[in-house]
Amino acid sequence: MEQHKQFMQIAINEAKASTKDVPVGAVLVIDGKIISKSSNKREQINRPSGHAEVVVIDDAAKILNSWRLQNAKLYVTLEPCPMCAALILQSKIKEVYFGAYDVQYGAFGSKLDMRNTINSQISVKGGILEEECKKLIVDFFQEKR
Amino acid sequence: MEQHKQFMQIAINEAKASTKDVPVGAVLVIDGKIISKSSNKREQINRPSGHAEVVVIDDAAKILNSWRLQNAKLYVTLEPCPMCAALILQSKIKEVYFGAYDVQYGAFGSKLDMRNTINSQISVKGGILEEECKKLIVDFFQEKR
Repeated sequence: MEQHKQFMQIAINEAKASTKDVPVGAVLVIDGKIISKSSNKREQINRPSGHAEVVVIDDAAKILNSWRLQNAKLYVTLEPCPMCAALILQSKIKEVYFGAYDVQYGAFGSKLDMRNTINSQISVKGGILEEECKKLIVDFFQEKR
Repeated sequence: MEQHKQFMQIAINEAKASTKDVPVGAVLVIDGKIISKSSNKREQINRPSGHAEVVVIDDAAKILNSWRLQNAKLYVTLEPCPMCAALILQSKIKEVYFGAYDVQYGAFGSKLDMRNTINSQISVKGGILEEECKKLIVDFFQEKR
């Protein structure tokens, strides 16, 4: 559990470094090593698919020269949306750990469960450093108002 | 209707040009002009998010310097999967025309309907040049066996 919190803390740091975007951070880990990390970059680089999860998955695949990431663990500060959840399942990631739950768009149980559509052996656990992860989002939207 | 078939034919040509990947092609059009076109490139470039729809949407956003594509029409030979359907809705695309229906993963009505999760004003129409689009997929998997 301690190790999961350590990687989530790195994802939180990524989220905090984001500027224009909704602050979400992600880290992709294989065999205890960080392969890629990113914040949400949709606004920053005008990439519609630029959620943190998509960026770290695409980056890791490029580094590993394979789009299948069977041994990967993904840490992300917010429950993945349907786009990201579908990509996570399609890329065969083994374990996902997320921080805050997203009742509006969360696709690992909160709004819908993408595992009902795409078969997989994935293990998913939410609520890692939940309060800190939630605070990132709450603070961002309070500042915006 | 004729114009829709013309753009779908260009999407079919893109799909036919693909080599390693499941042959799916997409074209993104604004004001009657093609902004971007691509085949599915997941295997070819080892990009997990490299479905044809994601590639043309990200490419168009880069060209237009905006991740919101409100006036865009997307033509794709196969009904979008949940990842692509969610991205299409998030990027505010106005109209989607697809060719073949996908009972296994189609996320605009066949397997699930992503519009039930993500609010949008999108117009979606399937079955454009359906037989030709279906044949691309059927032929690909028959050759593989």
